[in-house]
Amino acid sequence: MRFSGAFIPTKRDVPRDAVVISHQLMLRAGMMSQESAGIYTWLPFGLRALQRIEALICQEQERAGAVRLLMPTLQSAELWQESGRFDTYGPEMLRLQDRHQRDFVYGPTNEEMITALLRRYVSGAGAMPRMLYHVQWKFRDEARPRFGVMRCREFLMKDAYSFAQDEDEALQMYEAMFRCYIRSFARLGLYPLAVRAPTGPIGGDLSHEFHILAQTGESGLVYDKAYDKVYANVSDQRESRQGLILSDDAIERIRGVYAATDDMHDGGTCAVAEGDLNKARGIEVGHIFFFGTKYSRAMGLSVQGAGGTFYPQMGSYGIGLSRLVAAVIEANHDENGIIWPLSVAPFQVGLLNVRLGDSSCDDVAGSMYGMLEKAGISVLYDDRGLRAGVQFADMDLLGLPWQVIVGPKTAEKGQVELKWRRDGTRVTVGSEEAVKRILAGAGAVG
Amino acid sequence: MRFSGAFIPTKRDVPRDAVVISHQLMLRAGMMSQESAGIYTWLPFGLRALQRIEALICQEQERAGAVRLLMPTLQSAELWQESGRFDTYGPEMLRLQDRHQRDFVYGPTNEEMITALLRRYVSGAGAMPRMLYHVQWKFRDEARPRFGVMRCREFLMKDAYSFAQDEDEALQMYEAMFRCYIRSFARLGLYPLAVRAPTGPIGGDLSHEFHILAQTGESGLVYDKAYDKVYANVSDQRESRQGLILSDDAIERIRGVYAATDDMHDGGTCAVAEGDLNKARGIEVGHIFFFGTKYSRAMGLSVQGAGGTFYPQMGSYGIGLSRLVAAVIEANHDENGIIWPLSVAPFQVGLLNVRLGDSSCDDVAGSMYGMLEKAGISVLYDDRGLRAGVQFADMDLLGLPWQVIVGPKTAEKGQVELKWRRDGTRVTVGSEEAVKRILAGAGAVG
Repeated sequence: MRFSGAFIPTKRDVPRDAVVISHQLMLRAGMMSQESAGIYTWLPFGLRALQRIEALICQEQERAGAVRLLMPTLQSAELWQESGRFDTYGPEMLRLQDRHQRDFVYGPTNEEMITALLRRYVSGAGAMPRMLYHVQWKFRDEARPRFGVMRCREFLMKDAYSFAQDEDEALQMYEAMFRCYIRSFARLGLYPLAVRAPTGPIGGDLSHEFHILAQTGESGLVYDKAYDKVYANVSDQRESRQGLILSDDAIERIRGVYAATDDMHDGGTCAVAEGDLNKARGIEVGHIFFFGTKYSRAMGLSVQGAGGTFYPQMGSYGIGLSRLVAAVIEANHDENGIIWPLSVAPFQVGLLNVRLGDSSCDDVAGSMYGMLEKAGISVLYDDRGLRAGVQFADMDLLGLPWQVIVGPKTAEKGQVELKWRRDGTRVTVGSEEAVKRILAGAGAVG
Repeated sequence: MRFSGAFIPTKRDVPRDAVVISHQLMLRAGMMSQESAGIYTWLPFGLRALQRIEALICQEQERAGAVRLLMPTLQSAELWQESGRFDTYGPEMLRLQDRHQRDFVYGPTNEEMITALLRRYVSGAGAMPRMLYHVQWKFRDEARPRFGVMRCREFLMKDAYSFAQDEDEALQMYEAMFRCYIRSFARLGLYPLAVRAPTGPIGGDLSHEFHILAQTGESGLVYDKAYDKVYANVSDQRESRQGLILSDDAIERIRGVYAATDDMHDGGTCAVAEGDLNKARGIEVGHIFFFGTKYSRAMGLSVQGAGGTFYPQMGSYGIGLSRLVAAVIEANHDENGIIWPLSVAPFQVGLLNVRLGDSSCDDVAGSMYGMLEKAGISVLYDDRGLRAGVQFADMDLLGLPWQVIVGPKTAEKGQVELKWRRDGTRVTVGSEEAVKRILAGAGAVG
């Protein structure tokens, strides 16, 4: 795509109201724009990131056996009355009435609706186990939305729901999704701590939150230092376009690390010695729940099994996709801007034409653009004709993994400068060699 | 995907409340499920159709130079007060308040929001021309939602917005999107009439609706019989996986056909002779508007041009994607069920194992499944072990373009029966030949 037509309004200055780095960078990189408190438009560059993250998360959901459907944003209040949550959910639930004064809510989550859906279709035991998921806009009417899309009101969520014949099967499904989450996040370049968590308004007995470490995180965490070693081991691999694929063994090791929120941590009972613990702040990027028959029983989803009628054992599994964009940026940036992992970069390559109008530059840049697009590599081509310094600063800010810099000296020789954004290494190579290295994977040098 | 885990709850009986054929078929094929009046869950099979149609429409939008962003579902009432539509839009606009008693609407369309967005970012003339689009859930609080997703309340819409320096440029953009629409619909197997239309609550001077012919359509249409000839000429081509790509010439011919709604048609002034006119009923699948400076002026979007400050000339361009699923079915079905065009079929192939458990059948079906998936062909594999008659009926109902039928007689010889759903033709061929024919394009025979 050509920068001139792309509608990516970059900004030099740090916006006044943005406190956390991801919020600052998302505004400066022209990724989103606030419409009302906690309600955002996703501008083209931000939307591309959101879509790539969504696609990756969905790929891993399907790999874990979840089947995709799509529930609506508005839900009848009757569903929430059946479960008893209409009165208890509190002011974060947005309530409204249609033209006939029927009560609705803008769904903050979908336990009720999916339970009612299965009630309409499922009667025999053959229907279990079942894992269904969707990606839909949710609304939670936060009293103080802040930190950009990190804590906003209208947000995009992936939520999955599991239905099992008995508790054993349900816990196996919970564990499978637990591992799926660790695997999914690693592909995004994130290595979250899995923290035993309170179940809150969803309810149930068992719950884990996934937190990535960030100084600006809202939660205080305590965790086993072993985590840093696990992290160092798995992240030491070469970056690829599919992202880091963790081995089952690595997933087990991450799964085994002790971690808790400040308020859940009890030094007296914790098996890890005080000296082996670190403290840090974290951002929640996922939350999983096992709540047994809470909803199936309340809403009368019963199934005929071999041993008689039973209520399915349920779980739910959420990832805030819009927040995840911010979390990826929190974990991948430097003082010059964002550093996108190859796996979810809005474009793989930023192509800079340092002297638009110079015939060698235009030729080489044009031919690079053509070759890369033909090879299926997405390119943002800066054809705005601005001076080199602005182009360099904008491209570092946008943080595409590769930069291809076309200047008059190298262009005359049919060469380009190839820069790997993450470490800033550069090499000067022929155009075709540049395409070859970009196709091969990470790193400008070697 | 395996049918056993796919959550496609097919139904034999025609649902009582469904009047139009697309509504009946979508319910019987387990594509969607009603949650409240005019509010639906898209079940997995329906969602796949919706996603494929969305992807195709977006591909053509980008081809026409539109850039994608994503605006939120909820809009501040203030925006609508600025344009003057908050009071005039009527009861179809869903109004609500957040916890701080601030007024919002669930967006029925986005002219206000996109105008305000550009007002925040655009000041110089270089910003024109610009075409932006998004795909987002909308809400129109219909007094009587009916016909399934054809006239529902929460619906998925693609809406594009054009901004131009002057009226000439604006009309060129209108014409470009007009052609884009004809081209897009043809790829879906639809040949709509373009009807000069009233502008309604969007406003402006110029507007066209796109209607596909269907007995159950809500609009009465009058049109030049020449349309049938144009249609016969263009549709006489072999179906392909990208769908029919119209030539510019064919688009011009379709563009030139006279058509009007009953109430807009005036026999006295119409240039087409009475005897050359047909009457029919139509379903609106798209609507485009040119409304000049209506919103840019009301909302103060002004731009500095060479000749001074001007208000951009705007247009908007909508396609109801959820309705389009129904429209494709209205235009592509027979007495046994849906007949998906290759270009948007939820799966390309339905694979039937007529005798699950028979070792030759299981081998051949398993190897077909593997070969097709490896070739990038999406397959729905009926592994439910139901009797042949049920499998045949379900597969015809679901309407996947290809059926591969594995039965004991042919399987022993490593053969399968290949059926082209649209005309029912069948051939018995070796497994690899079947894959080859499926990759090649349309039609079982030849």
